[in-house]
Amino acid sequence: MPLSDTAEPATTLSPTLELAIDLMRRPSVTPDDAGCQDVMIERLERLGFHVQRLPFGDVVNFWAVRGHHGPVLAFAGHTDVVPSGPESQWHTPPFAPQINAEGELCGRGAADMKGSLAAMITAVERFVAAHPEHDGRLAFLITSDEEGPARDGTRAVVEHLREAHERLDYCIVGEPSSTARLGDVIKNGRRGSLGGVLHVHGVQGHVAYPHLARNPIHDAAPALDALCREHWDAGNDFFPATSFQISNIRSGTGATNVIPGELEVVFNFRYSTEVTHEQLRERTEAILDAHGLDYRLDWTLNGEPFLTAEGDLIEATLAGVEEIVGQRPELSTAGGTSDGRFIATLGSQVVELGPLNATIHKVNERVRAADLDTLSRIYETIMRRLFT
Amino acid sequence: MPLSDTAEPATTLSPTLELAIDLMRRPSVTPDDAGCQDVMIERLERLGFHVQRLPFGDVVNFWAVRGHHGPVLAFAGHTDVVPSGPESQWHTPPFAPQINAEGELCGRGAADMKGSLAAMITAVERFVAAHPEHDGRLAFLITSDEEGPARDGTRAVVEHLREAHERLDYCIVGEPSSTARLGDVIKNGRRGSLGGVLHVHGVQGHVAYPHLARNPIHDAAPALDALCREHWDAGNDFFPATSFQISNIRSGTGATNVIPGELEVVFNFRYSTEVTHEQLRERTEAILDAHGLDYRLDWTLNGEPFLTAEGDLIEATLAGVEEIVGQRPELSTAGGTSDGRFIATLGSQVVELGPLNATIHKVNERVRAADLDTLSRIYETIMRRLFT
Ligand SMILES: [Zn+2]
Ligand SMILES: [Zn+2]
Repeated sequence: MPLSDTAEPATTLSPTLELAIDLMRRPSVTPDDAGCQDVMIERLERLGFHVQRLPFGDVVNFWAVRGHHGPVLAFAGHTDVVPSGPESQWHTPPFAPQINAEGELCGRGAADMKGSLAAMITAVERFVAAHPEHDGRLAFLITSDEEGPARDGTRAVVEHLREAHERLDYCIVGEPSSTARLGDVIKNGRRGSLGGVLHVHGVQGHVAYPHLARNPIHDAAPALDALCREHWDAGNDFFPATSFQISNIRSGTGATNVIPGELEVVFNFRYSTEVTHEQLRERTEAILDAHGLDYRLDWTLNGEPFLTAEGDLIEATLAGVEEIVGQRPELSTAGGTSDGRFIATLGSQVVELGPLNATIHKVNERVRAADLDTLSRIYETIMRRLFT
Repeated sequence: MPLSDTAEPATTLSPTLELAIDLMRRPSVTPDDAGCQDVMIERLERLGFHVQRLPFGDVVNFWAVRGHHGPVLAFAGHTDVVPSGPESQWHTPPFAPQINAEGELCGRGAADMKGSLAAMITAVERFVAAHPEHDGRLAFLITSDEEGPARDGTRAVVEHLREAHERLDYCIVGEPSSTARLGDVIKNGRRGSLGGVLHVHGVQGHVAYPHLARNPIHDAAPALDALCREHWDAGNDFFPATSFQISNIRSGTGATNVIPGELEVVFNFRYSTEVTHEQLRERTEAILDAHGLDYRLDWTLNGEPFLTAEGDLIEATLAGVEEIVGQRPELSTAGGTSDGRFIATLGSQVVELGPLNATIHKVNERVRAADLDTLSRIYETIMRRLFT
């Protein structure tokens, strides 16, 4: 049964779980915030944070700061969640969070990332209570547009901070970075993502008269093969080799006796810090040109790669996790993009640290309830190591 | 204005044009015959033809024979036409035939191929009147399913003739073979057509984790390139080299960050008599296998190539055209498939001879009215050369 209907006293839940459940009850399907940020802002203002609401388009965001001097440590995250998917496949309703018999908090956003948001808030509450005059400044950068187009969310807030000459030294993004147990992996960077849409132009005709047509599929085949075989780089200590993948290809009228006039190919690079997006564009176009294709190519830079190879934040995070869970995390740059790509452009040190990601974006998203309390203690420990 | 509304006496039209117009007024969009065959059958029975109606499915066909001994010369054709296309683009209504100021008979079916059918009937009428006791036998093989699936039409009639051990020595198909002027080209064969639908199996995944996926587009690229480059044969005196064309290719979920799990490629061979369809299948599969693809390949044999390199029919046709138009026609095997591919399997000599094909399957289909009278004289001359 939903927790709201239970006869058990709410006092059996930790403040972190109580807050996580409060946030998860709000069906904040991207870009809807559904009131989550109001809950967070009320708690932060009570702690003396100065809050700036920064709505852009239909996206709500806020930037909150506590303190007036010294380096800024920001907790970053998102209140929006992906849609629930087929509700009939959920064992519990996606927006009526419950703790099951295995001690797992179940519901959309449990891992990505309302659990992290709750852990951040309660960590800051305990830290500020213990160290009201802490060194440096604490901040929150929260958006409701991470799972959506990610245009009016963190990206827009970061542009606002840049124009306002706001300082952002350290950033902990609450994305679910753990894989097998809490804190086993933290992300200290992400690969870049560069997309391309290629249109190869041919001349339509009838298959019986190939000399009167120009088949763009035939023209493109050796060039696509060359792109697939190309060794873009070897990666480095932090990044795997740059990867090229064709995600979509389409040509043809549907008729079996017509040579098509146009081919569309959609592809994506996930690239390391060993190449730039300019180099990838140039090399791609050189390969297409070498094959004599008649084409148009439209590029989209989804995010440049970023890396926090070393520094105070990494040290505090590695030591903080080890202090609480007894094991040093592994550093990783694997996986998709995150809002860290925008924040890193401010010159900030950025790490991503959050719960296990096994169930994110799936039905029956869930996280060990005890992990959220542990995560809150880790966040608190990092603050203590940096700011006391 | 439509001819039916004109004040001019109908006697200004030749019997061939009158019959062509009568047939063209019937909107026999494939596979509908719209009564055309009844008109032809009535004329043929009056000449002493023995007619067998051979309906299959929703397609009507007939086989008609005059005479009891000796070689059989059949006129073959279809009463069905392709749809009109956008009527607003026609200068005259598609099924209200008119002769325009340039002396062109305008309307759907003028060239493909009610004009030819009318010319065949009037040619036979004159020939039988002049030679009631002609040598050999005359025949008609008429279908209403040439423009459609071509399954229950000539193909089915030919199977019936084969089972009935009917003889078919010479066949003149009325397809519009002429290009610049009437009789400049006759077709003495057609290339084979072999279709394939290739499904390449991969493993779907996220572009950020290519090592967990298998991209069927990447797998297929070098194999498709090899198929496009392959030299299948060099053709021969009658056929151009065999041609391979990919008509359709499709893969991808639409999302730019998903590696697709499946690729579909539709291709077509137009092949000469230098290879067999079995060889093309084997060689294609050998190339796919050599590239280690995981695939399924479904084949469709649309028609084997056929060729009438020499013989009485070719000689009579070349000489007959030259006698009437003053110039010897060129032999050609170019272009798409025709019902000749089915008839040739009976061991018949087959030629295709008809009006100019410039406007077929287009809006404002038309043919020089005088050409139909000339075509009727050519058909008559061929009969005379073979059977008197
Ligand atoms: Zn997330
Ligand atoms: Zn035709």
